Amino acid sequence: MTETTIRVSEIFGPTIQGEGVLIGQPTVFVRTGGCDYRCSWCDSLHAVESRFREDWQPLSVEAIWAEVETLSNGKPLMVSLSGGNPAIQPLGPLIAHGHARGYRFALETQGSVPKDWFADLDVLVLSPKPPSSGMETDWQKLEDCLSMADGKPQTVLKFIVFDDADYAYAKSAAARFPALPVTLQPGNHTPPPPEEEDAVIDLDGIMARMHWLVDKVMEDGWFTARVLPQLHVLLWGNRRGV
Amino acid sequence: MTETTIRVSEIFGPTIQGEGVLIGQPTVFVRTGGCDYRCSWCDSLHAVESRFREDWQPLSVEAIWAEVETLSNGKPLMVSLSGGNPAIQPLGPLIAHGHARGYRFALETQGSVPKDWFADLDVLVLSPKPPSSGMETDWQKLEDCLSMADGKPQTVLKFIVFDDADYAYAKSAAARFPALPVTLQPGNHTPPPPEEEDAVIDLDGIMARMHWLVDKVMEDGWFTARVLPQLHVLLWGNRRGV
Repeated sequence: MTETTIRVSEIFGPTIQGEGVLIGQPTVFVRTGGCDYRCSWCDSLHAVESRFREDWQPLSVEAIWAEVETLSNGKPLMVSLSGGNPAIQPLGPLIAHGHARGYRFALETQGSVPKDWFADLDVLVLSPKPPSSGMETDWQKLEDCLSMADGKPQTVLKFIVFDDADYAYAKSAAARFPALPVTLQPGNHTPPPPEEEDAVIDLDGIMARMHWLVDKVMEDGWFTARVLPQLHVLLWGNRRGV
Repeated sequence: MTETTIRVSEIFGPTIQGEGVLIGQPTVFVRTGGCDYRCSWCDSLHAVESRFREDWQPLSVEAIWAEVETLSNGKPLMVSLSGGNPAIQPLGPLIAHGHARGYRFALETQGSVPKDWFADLDVLVLSPKPPSSGMETDWQKLEDCLSMADGKPQTVLKFIVFDDADYAYAKSAAARFPALPVTLQPGNHTPPPPEEEDAVIDLDGIMARMHWLVDKVMEDGWFTARVLPQLHVLLWGNRRGV
Protein backbone atom coordinates (compact mmCIF):
# COMPACT_ATOMS: atom_id res chain seq x y z
CA MET A 1 0.00 0.00 0.00
CA THR A 2 1.08 3.57 -0.51
CA GLU A 3 2.75 5.78 2.11
CA THR A 4 1.33 8.94 0.59
CA THR A 5 -0.35 11.40 2.93
CA ILE A 6 -2.62 14.17 1.77
CA ARG A 7 -3.51 17.27 3.75
CA VAL A 8 -7.30 17.27 4.00
CA SER A 9 -9.38 20.21 5.19
CA GLU A 10 -12.74 18.46 4.92
CA ILE A 11 -14.54 15.58 3.25
CA PHE A 12 -18.27 16.00 2.79
CA GLY A 13 -21.26 14.97 0.74
CA PRO A 14 -22.81 13.49 -1.14
CA THR A 15 -24.47 16.66 -2.34
CA ILE A 16 -24.89 18.24 -5.73
CA GLN A 17 -21.99 19.96 -7.40
CA GLY A 18 -22.92 23.63 -7.33
CA GLU A 19 -20.67 25.03 -10.04
CA GLY A 20 -19.52 24.62 -13.61
CA VAL A 21 -20.15 21.88 -16.14
CA LEU A 22 -20.92 19.28 -13.48
CA ILE A 23 -23.60 21.44 -11.86
CA GLY A 24 -26.27 19.26 -10.28
CA GLN A 25 -24.10 16.12 -10.26
CA PRO A 26 -24.12 14.12 -7.01
CA THR A 27 -20.62 14.45 -5.64
CA VAL A 28 -18.47 13.78 -2.60
CA PHE A 29 -16.00 16.60 -2.01
CA VAL A 30 -12.46 16.07 -0.80
CA ARG A 31 -11.19 19.54 0.05
CA THR A 32 -7.45 19.69 0.55
CA GLY A 33 -5.67 22.29 2.66
CA GLY A 34 -3.16 24.81 1.37
CA CYS A 35 -2.99 27.16 -1.57
CA ASP A 36 -0.36 29.03 -3.58
CA TYR A 37 -2.90 31.84 -4.16
CA ARG A 38 -4.66 34.31 -1.86
CA CYS A 39 -7.66 35.51 -3.84
CA SER A 40 -9.25 38.63 -2.38
CA TRP A 41 -12.72 37.07 -2.44
CA CYS A 42 -11.75 33.47 -1.62
CA ASP A 43 -14.76 31.59 -0.25
CA SER A 44 -12.69 28.76 1.25
CA LEU A 45 -10.10 30.54 3.39
CA HIS A 46 -10.45 27.81 6.02
CA ALA A 47 -8.66 25.60 3.47
CA VAL A 48 -6.19 28.26 2.39
CA GLU A 49 -4.74 30.30 5.23
CA SER A 50 -1.81 28.75 7.08
CA ARG A 51 -3.29 29.66 10.45
CA PHE A 52 -5.80 26.84 9.87
CA ARG A 53 -3.03 24.41 9.02
CA GLU A 54 -3.61 22.43 12.19
CA ASP A 55 -7.11 21.63 10.94
CA TRP A 56 -5.71 19.99 7.82
CA GLN A 57 -5.12 16.40 8.76
CA PRO A 58 -2.39 14.52 6.89
CA LEU A 59 -4.40 11.47 5.85
CA SER A 60 -3.43 8.32 4.03
CA VAL A 61 -5.20 7.30 0.86
CA GLU A 62 -6.84 4.50 2.82
CA ALA A 63 -8.14 6.86 5.50
CA ILE A 64 -9.56 9.26 2.91
CA TRP A 65 -11.09 6.41 1.03
CA ALA A 66 -12.75 4.95 4.08
CA GLU A 67 -14.54 8.27 4.57
CA VAL A 68 -15.54 8.60 0.90
CA GLU A 69 -16.94 5.06 0.93
CA THR A 70 -18.85 5.67 4.16
CA LEU A 71 -20.38 8.89 2.82
CA SER A 72 -21.33 7.33 -0.52
CA ASN A 73 -22.44 4.08 1.08
CA GLY A 74 -19.97 2.24 -1.14
CA LYS A 75 -21.76 3.35 -4.29
CA PRO A 76 -19.49 4.84 -6.96
CA LEU A 77 -20.00 8.51 -7.74
CA MET A 78 -18.10 11.63 -8.74
CA VAL A 79 -15.43 12.78 -6.30
CA SER A 80 -14.50 16.44 -6.55
CA LEU A 81 -10.97 17.28 -5.52
CA SER A 82 -11.04 20.90 -4.43
CA GLY A 83 -9.21 23.21 -2.09
CA GLY A 84 -7.30 25.40 -1.58
CA ASN A 85 -5.34 24.30 -4.59
CA PRO A 86 -5.61 20.51 -4.62
CA ALA A 87 -2.88 20.35 -7.27
CA ILE A 88 -0.25 20.95 -4.59
CA GLN A 89 -1.15 17.62 -2.96
CA PRO A 90 -0.04 14.17 -4.20
CA LEU A 91 -3.44 13.00 -5.42
CA GLY A 92 -2.36 10.44 -8.03
CA PRO A 93 -2.59 7.42 -5.69
CA LEU A 94 -6.02 8.48 -4.41
CA ILE A 95 -7.33 8.70 -7.98
CA ALA A 96 -5.93 5.26 -8.84
CA HIS A 97 -7.46 3.81 -5.67
CA GLY A 98 -10.90 5.24 -6.44
CA HIS A 99 -10.84 4.37 -10.13
CA ALA A 100 -10.22 0.75 -9.23
CA ARG A 101 -13.54 0.92 -7.31
CA GLY A 102 -15.53 2.58 -10.08
CA TYR A 103 -15.46 6.16 -8.75
CA ARG A 104 -14.74 9.16 -10.97
CA PHE A 105 -12.68 12.24 -10.22
CA ALA A 106 -12.94 15.92 -11.05
CA LEU A 107 -10.23 18.40 -10.06
CA GLU A 108 -10.84 22.12 -9.50
CA THR A 109 -7.68 24.20 -9.73
CA GLN A 110 -6.49 27.63 -10.85
CA GLY A 111 -3.94 25.91 -13.08
CA SER A 112 -0.80 27.23 -11.41
CA VAL A 113 0.74 23.86 -10.47
CA PRO A 114 0.89 21.24 -13.25
CA LYS A 115 1.02 17.58 -12.22
CA ASP A 116 1.42 14.47 -14.33
CA TRP A 117 -1.57 12.80 -12.63
CA PHE A 118 -3.89 15.35 -14.30
CA ALA A 119 -4.00 12.83 -17.17
CA ASP A 120 -5.68 10.34 -14.81
CA LEU A 121 -8.63 12.62 -14.02
CA ASP A 122 -12.08 12.27 -15.52
CA VAL A 123 -12.75 16.00 -15.44
CA LEU A 124 -10.25 18.86 -15.14
CA VAL A 125 -11.72 22.25 -14.31
CA LEU A 126 -9.17 25.02 -14.85
CA SER A 127 -10.24 28.20 -13.17
CA PRO A 128 -7.63 30.91 -13.77
CA LYS A 129 -8.27 33.87 -11.51
CA PRO A 130 -9.36 37.24 -12.92
CA PRO A 131 -7.99 40.68 -11.96
CA SER A 132 -10.48 41.17 -9.09
CA SER A 133 -8.79 38.29 -7.27
CA GLY A 134 -5.58 40.29 -6.98
CA MET A 135 -3.66 37.35 -8.47
CA GLU A 136 -1.60 37.22 -11.68
CA THR A 137 -1.99 34.33 -14.07
CA ASP A 138 1.12 32.46 -15.17
CA TRP A 139 -0.02 31.44 -18.64
CA GLN A 140 2.90 29.10 -19.16
CA LYS A 141 1.84 27.16 -16.07
CA LEU A 142 -1.71 26.94 -17.37
CA GLU A 143 -0.38 25.62 -20.70
CA ASP A 144 1.69 23.11 -18.73
CA CYS A 145 -1.45 21.93 -16.92
CA LEU A 146 -3.04 21.23 -20.28
CA SER A 147 0.08 19.42 -21.47
CA MET A 148 0.01 17.25 -18.36
CA ALA A 149 -3.67 16.45 -18.89
CA ASP A 150 -2.70 15.31 -22.38
CA GLY A 151 -6.25 15.57 -23.71
CA LYS A 152 -7.43 12.74 -21.49
CA PRO A 153 -9.89 14.25 -18.98
CA GLN A 154 -12.86 16.33 -20.09
CA THR A 155 -11.23 19.74 -19.66
CA VAL A 156 -13.10 23.00 -19.18
CA LEU A 157 -12.42 26.59 -18.24
CA LYS A 158 -14.35 28.23 -15.43
CA PHE A 159 -14.16 31.96 -14.87
CA ILE A 160 -15.42 33.94 -11.93
CA VAL A 161 -16.61 37.34 -13.10
CA PHE A 162 -17.16 40.25 -10.73
CA ASP A 163 -16.80 43.18 -13.13
CA ASP A 164 -15.95 44.37 -16.64
CA ALA A 165 -12.22 43.80 -16.18
CA ASP A 166 -12.86 40.21 -15.11
CA TYR A 167 -15.11 39.72 -18.12
CA ALA A 168 -12.43 41.04 -20.49
CA TYR A 169 -9.91 38.71 -18.83
CA ALA A 170 -12.23 35.72 -19.27
CA LYS A 171 -12.73 36.52 -22.95
CA SER A 172 -9.07 36.86 -23.73
CA ALA A 173 -8.16 33.78 -21.67
CA ALA A 174 -10.83 31.74 -23.44
CA ALA A 175 -9.47 32.95 -26.78
CA ARG A 176 -6.11 31.37 -25.92
CA PHE A 177 -7.79 27.97 -25.62
CA PRO A 178 -10.52 27.92 -28.26
CA ALA A 179 -11.06 24.17 -27.95
CA LEU A 180 -12.07 24.35 -24.27
CA PRO A 181 -15.68 24.82 -23.18
CA VAL A 182 -16.22 27.82 -20.93
CA THR A 183 -18.47 28.48 -17.96
CA LEU A 184 -18.83 31.95 -16.45
CA GLN A 185 -19.92 32.43 -12.87
CA PRO A 186 -20.78 35.57 -10.95
CA GLY A 187 -18.74 35.98 -7.78
CA ASN A 188 -19.95 35.88 -4.22
CA HIS A 189 -18.87 39.25 -2.84
CA THR A 190 -19.98 38.13 0.63
CA PRO A 191 -17.77 35.08 1.12
CA PRO A 192 -17.73 33.57 4.61
CA PRO A 193 -15.02 34.61 7.06
CA PRO A 194 -13.07 31.38 7.61
CA GLU A 195 -14.08 31.21 11.27
CA GLU A 196 -17.77 31.09 10.41
CA GLU A 197 -19.52 28.08 9.01
CA ASP A 198 -22.77 29.75 8.05
CA ALA A 199 -22.14 33.46 7.50
CA VAL A 200 -24.85 35.66 6.02
CA ILE A 201 -24.72 36.26 2.27
CA ASP A 202 -26.11 39.06 0.16
CA LEU A 203 -28.36 36.90 -2.01
CA ASP A 204 -29.95 39.89 -3.74
CA GLY A 205 -26.52 41.20 -4.65
CA ILE A 206 -25.46 37.79 -5.99
CA MET A 207 -28.66 37.58 -8.04
CA ALA A 208 -28.04 41.09 -9.38
CA ARG A 209 -24.55 40.02 -10.47
CA MET A 210 -26.02 36.98 -12.19
CA HIS A 211 -28.53 39.16 -14.07
CA TRP A 212 -25.74 41.54 -15.03
CA LEU A 213 -23.56 38.70 -16.30
CA VAL A 214 -26.35 37.08 -18.33
CA ASP A 215 -27.14 40.44 -19.96
CA LYS A 216 -23.50 41.11 -20.68
CA VAL A 217 -22.90 37.73 -22.33
CA MET A 218 -26.03 38.08 -24.46
CA GLU A 219 -25.22 41.63 -25.55
CA ASP A 220 -21.69 40.59 -26.33
CA GLY A 221 -22.85 37.55 -28.28
CA TRP A 222 -20.53 35.17 -26.47
CA PHE A 223 -22.88 32.30 -27.24
CA THR A 224 -20.41 29.49 -26.64
CA ALA A 225 -19.98 30.41 -22.97
CA ARG A 226 -22.40 29.03 -20.40
CA VAL A 227 -23.46 31.27 -17.53
CA LEU A 228 -24.09 29.46 -14.28
CA PRO A 229 -24.57 30.55 -10.68
CA GLN A 230 -23.02 28.96 -7.62
CA LEU A 231 -26.10 26.86 -7.12
CA HIS A 232 -25.11 25.72 -3.63
CA VAL A 233 -24.92 29.38 -2.55
CA LEU A 234 -28.45 30.00 -3.85
CA LEU A 235 -29.66 26.88 -2.03
CA TRP A 236 -27.69 26.95 1.19
CA GLY A 237 -25.95 30.33 1.41
CA ASN A 238 -22.48 30.11 2.89
CA ARG A 239 -23.24 26.99 4.91
CA ARG A 240 -20.29 24.65 4.90
CA GLY A 241 -20.50 20.93 4.14
CA VAL A 242 -23.39 20.98 1.67
CA MET B 1 -38.15 27.40 -50.88
CA THR B 2 -40.42 25.45 -48.63
CA GLU B 3 -44.12 26.02 -48.16
CA THR B 4 -44.06 24.71 -44.61
CA THR B 5 -45.78 26.80 -41.99
CA ILE B 6 -45.22 26.35 -38.28
CA ARG B 7 -47.55 27.55 -35.54
CA VAL B 8 -45.43 29.79 -33.34
CA SER B 9 -46.48 31.06 -29.93
CA GLU B 10 -43.36 33.14 -29.28
CA ILE B 11 -39.74 33.59 -30.29
CA PHE B 12 -37.47 35.10 -27.67
CA GLY B 13 -33.92 35.38 -26.47
CA PRO B 14 -31.07 35.11 -26.50
CA THR B 15 -31.08 34.20 -22.85
CA ILE B 16 -29.68 31.29 -20.90
CA GLN B 17 -31.35 27.92 -21.03
CA GLY B 18 -32.83 27.49 -17.57
CA GLU B 19 -33.31 23.73 -17.45
CA GLY B 20 -31.67 20.38 -17.99
CA VAL B 21 -28.31 19.47 -19.47
CA LEU B 22 -28.02 22.70 -21.43
CA ILE B 23 -28.55 24.85 -18.32
CA GLY B 24 -26.70 28.15 -18.68
CA GLN B 25 -26.31 27.85 -22.46
CA PRO B 26 -27.15 31.00 -24.47
CA THR B 27 -30.24 30.11 -26.44
CA VAL B 28 -32.96 31.54 -28.64
CA PHE B 29 -36.30 29.90 -27.93
CA VAL B 30 -38.85 29.10 -30.61
CA ARG B 31 -41.99 28.13 -28.71
CA THR B 32 -44.60 26.48 -30.87
CA GLY B 33 -48.31 26.48 -30.13
CA GLY B 34 -50.40 23.40 -29.43
CA CYS B 35 -50.04 20.32 -27.32
CA ASP B 36 -51.44 16.80 -27.13
CA TYR B 37 -51.09 16.94 -23.32
CA ARG B 38 -52.74 19.02 -20.60
CA CYS B 39 -50.44 18.75 -17.61
CA SER B 40 -52.03 19.91 -14.38
CA TRP B 41 -49.07 22.16 -13.57
CA CYS B 42 -48.20 23.28 -17.10
CA ASP B 43 -46.20 26.52 -16.98
CA SER B 44 -46.79 27.37 -20.64
CA LEU B 45 -50.56 27.18 -21.04
CA HIS B 46 -50.44 30.20 -23.35
CA ALA B 47 -48.80 27.82 -25.83
CA VAL B 48 -51.07 24.91 -25.05
CA GLU B 49 -54.73 25.83 -24.66
CA SER B 50 -56.73 26.14 -27.86
CA ARG B 51 -58.34 29.37 -26.68
CA PHE B 52 -54.96 31.02 -27.37
CA ARG B 53 -54.80 29.52 -30.84
CA GLU B 54 -55.26 32.91 -32.47
CA ASP B 55 -51.99 34.02 -30.89
CA TRP B 56 -50.09 31.22 -32.62
CA GLN B 57 -49.07 32.65 -35.93
CA PRO B 58 -48.58 30.21 -38.80
CA LEU B 59 -45.11 31.31 -39.90
CA SER B 60 -42.92 30.19 -42.76
CA VAL B 61 -39.43 28.88 -42.09
CA GLU B 62 -38.09 32.11 -43.61
CA ALA B 63 -40.17 34.31 -41.30
CA ILE B 64 -39.10 32.36 -38.21
CA TRP B 65 -35.53 32.45 -39.34
CA ALA B 66 -35.55 36.18 -39.92
CA GLU B 67 -36.57 36.63 -36.28
CA VAL B 68 -33.99 34.16 -34.95
CA GLU B 69 -31.25 35.91 -36.93
CA THR B 70 -32.36 39.33 -35.73
CA LEU B 71 -32.38 38.23 -32.10
CA SER B 72 -28.99 36.52 -32.35
CA ASN B 73 -27.51 39.27 -34.48
CA GLY B 74 -26.69 36.68 -37.12
CA LYS B 75 -24.36 34.82 -34.78
CA PRO B 76 -24.94 31.08 -34.59
CA LEU B 77 -26.15 29.72 -31.27
CA MET B 78 -28.37 27.05 -29.77
CA VAL B 79 -32.05 27.24 -30.76
CA SER B 80 -34.43 25.52 -28.36
CA LEU B 81 -37.60 24.21 -29.93
CA SER B 82 -40.16 24.12 -27.15
CA GLY B 83 -43.89 24.36 -26.69
CA GLY B 84 -46.52 23.13 -26.11
CA ASN B 85 -45.30 19.98 -27.80
CA PRO B 86 -43.09 21.14 -30.65
CA ALA B 87 -43.06 17.61 -32.06
CA ILE B 88 -46.56 18.14 -33.49
CA GLN B 89 -45.17 20.85 -35.80
CA PRO B 90 -43.25 20.20 -39.05
CA LEU B 91 -39.85 21.40 -37.81
CA GLY B 92 -37.57 19.44 -40.17
CA PRO B 93 -37.18 22.25 -42.73
CA LEU B 94 -36.46 24.83 -39.99
CA ILE B 95 -33.68 22.64 -38.59
CA ALA B 96 -32.15 22.13 -42.05
CA HIS B 97 -32.34 25.88 -42.69
CA GLY B 98 -30.59 26.74 -39.43
CA HIS B 99 -27.98 24.01 -39.68
CA ALA B 100 -26.91 25.38 -43.04
CA ARG B 101 -26.17 28.64 -41.20
CA GLY B 102 -24.23 27.08 -38.33
CA TYR B 103 -26.99 27.11 -35.70
CA ARG B 104 -27.73 24.14 -33.47
CA PHE B 105 -31.08 22.78 -32.32
CA ALA B 106 -32.43 21.25 -29.13
CA LEU B 107 -35.96 19.89 -28.90
CA GLU B 108 -37.93 19.64 -25.64
CA THR B 109 -40.80 17.18 -25.84
CA GLN B 110 -42.71 14.71 -23.68
CA GLY B 111 -42.00 12.04 -26.28
CA SER B 112 -45.57 11.31 -27.28
CA VAL B 113 -45.23 12.14 -30.99
CA PRO B 114 -42.25 10.57 -32.81
CA LYS B 115 -40.97 12.32 -35.93
CA ASP B 116 -38.29 11.28 -38.39
CA TRP B 117 -36.61 14.70 -38.15
CA PHE B 118 -35.60 13.94 -34.54
CA ALA B 119 -32.46 12.41 -36.11
CA ASP B 120 -31.52 15.86 -37.40
CA LEU B 121 -31.44 17.45 -33.94
CA ASP B 122 -28.30 18.22 -31.98
CA VAL B 123 -29.98 17.62 -28.62
CA LEU B 124 -33.18 15.73 -27.87
CA VAL B 125 -34.64 16.26 -24.40
CA LEU B 126 -37.32 13.70 -23.66
CA SER B 127 -39.41 14.74 -20.69
CA PRO B 128 -42.07 12.12 -20.00
CA LYS B 129 -44.64 13.43 -17.58
CA PRO B 130 -44.96 11.97 -14.07
CA PRO B 131 -48.19 11.06 -12.26
CA SER B 132 -48.68 14.54 -10.76
CA SER B 133 -49.22 15.87 -14.29
CA GLY B 134 -52.40 13.82 -14.65
CA MET B 135 -51.07 12.40 -17.94
CA GLU B 136 -50.33 8.78 -18.86
CA THR B 137 -47.10 7.90 -20.59
CA ASP B 138 -47.31 5.84 -23.78
CA TRP B 139 -44.03 3.97 -23.48
CA GLN B 140 -44.21 2.63 -27.01
CA LYS B 141 -44.36 6.19 -28.31
CA LEU B 142 -41.34 7.14 -26.21
CA GLU B 143 -39.45 4.14 -27.63
CA ASP B 144 -40.50 5.26 -31.10
CA CYS B 145 -39.06 8.73 -30.42
CA LEU B 146 -35.72 7.10 -29.60
CA SER B 147 -35.91 4.96 -32.73
CA MET B 148 -36.55 8.06 -34.82
CA ALA B 149 -33.60 9.85 -33.21
CA ASP B 150 -31.50 6.87 -34.26
CA GLY B 151 -28.74 7.66 -31.77
CA LYS B 152 -27.80 10.84 -33.60
CA PRO B 153 -28.64 13.75 -31.26
CA GLN B 154 -27.33 13.90 -27.71
CA THR B 155 -30.41 12.42 -26.01
CA VAL B 156 -31.33 12.93 -22.38
CA LEU B 157 -34.23 12.32 -20.04
CA LYS B 158 -35.62 15.15 -17.95
CA PHE B 159 -38.09 14.47 -15.16
CA ILE B 160 -40.14 16.94 -13.21
CA VAL B 161 -40.58 15.71 -9.66
CA PHE B 162 -43.24 17.09 -7.32
CA ASP B 163 -43.60 14.19 -4.90
CA ASP B 164 -42.67 10.62 -4.02
CA ALA B 165 -44.87 9.13 -6.73
CA ASP B 166 -43.17 11.31 -9.34
CA TYR B 167 -39.79 10.26 -8.02
CA ALA B 168 -40.70 6.57 -8.27
CA TYR B 169 -41.93 7.16 -11.81
CA ALA B 170 -38.65 8.88 -12.75
CA LYS B 171 -36.62 6.02 -11.35
CA SER B 172 -38.54 3.34 -13.15
CA ALA B 173 -38.63 5.32 -16.40
CA ALA B 174 -34.87 5.91 -16.22
CA ALA B 175 -34.37 2.17 -15.64
CA ARG B 176 -36.04 1.48 -19.00
CA PHE B 177 -33.37 3.56 -20.74
CA PRO B 178 -30.15 2.97 -18.81
CA ALA B 179 -27.97 4.53 -21.51
CA LEU B 180 -29.65 7.94 -21.26
CA PRO B 181 -28.39 10.63 -18.89
CA VAL B 182 -31.03 11.89 -16.46
CA THR B 183 -31.81 15.29 -14.99
CA LEU B 184 -34.34 15.74 -12.21
CA GLN B 185 -36.08 19.03 -11.62
CA PRO B 186 -38.41 20.16 -8.88
CA GLY B 187 -41.71 21.45 -10.16
CA ASN B 188 -43.06 24.97 -9.98
CA HIS B 189 -46.34 24.54 -8.10
CA THR B 190 -47.14 28.19 -8.78
CA PRO B 191 -47.10 28.26 -12.59
CA PRO B 192 -48.37 31.42 -14.27
CA PRO B 193 -52.00 31.62 -15.35
CA PRO B 194 -51.75 31.90 -19.15
CA GLU B 195 -53.21 35.41 -19.15
CA GLU B 196 -50.43 36.74 -16.93
CA GLU B 197 -46.91 37.42 -18.10
CA ASP B 198 -45.31 37.95 -14.72
CA ALA B 199 -47.37 36.13 -12.09
CA VAL B 200 -46.08 35.81 -8.55
CA ILE B 201 -44.27 32.60 -7.66
CA ASP B 202 -43.67 30.89 -4.34
CA LEU B 203 -39.87 30.98 -4.47
CA ASP B 204 -39.51 29.65 -0.92
CA GLY B 205 -41.72 26.72 -1.80
CA ILE B 206 -39.73 26.02 -4.96
CA MET B 207 -36.49 26.16 -2.98
CA ALA B 208 -37.96 23.82 -0.38
CA ARG B 209 -38.83 21.35 -3.16
CA MET B 210 -35.28 21.62 -4.49
CA HIS B 211 -33.86 20.88 -1.03
CA TRP B 212 -36.23 17.94 -0.67
CA LEU B 213 -35.26 16.54 -4.07
CA VAL B 214 -31.51 16.88 -3.44
CA ASP B 215 -31.90 15.10 -0.09
CA LYS B 216 -34.01 12.37 -1.62
CA VAL B 217 -31.56 11.67 -4.45
CA MET B 218 -28.61 11.58 -2.04
CA GLU B 219 -30.36 9.30 0.44
CA ASP B 220 -31.47 7.05 -2.37
CA GLY B 221 -27.96 6.98 -3.85
CA TRP B 222 -29.14 7.80 -7.36
CA PHE B 223 -25.73 9.26 -8.14
CA THR B 224 -26.04 9.18 -11.93
CA ALA B 225 -28.97 11.60 -11.93
CA ARG B 226 -28.31 15.33 -11.92
CA VAL B 227 -30.58 17.55 -9.86
CA LEU B 228 -31.15 20.98 -11.35
CA PRO B 229 -33.58 23.80 -10.66
CA GLN B 230 -35.47 25.82 -13.23
CA LEU B 231 -32.79 28.48 -13.13
CA HIS B 232 -34.85 31.03 -15.08
CA VAL B 233 -37.56 30.79 -12.41
CA LEU B 234 -35.02 31.49 -9.67
CA LEU B 235 -33.68 34.44 -11.65
CA TRP B 236 -36.80 35.92 -13.17
CA GLY B 237 -39.80 34.25 -11.54
CA ASN B 238 -42.64 33.60 -13.97
CA ARG B 239 -41.70 36.47 -16.26
CA ARG B 240 -42.20 35.50 -19.89
CA GLY B 241 -39.61 36.04 -22.63
CA VAL B 242 -36.46 35.57 -20.52
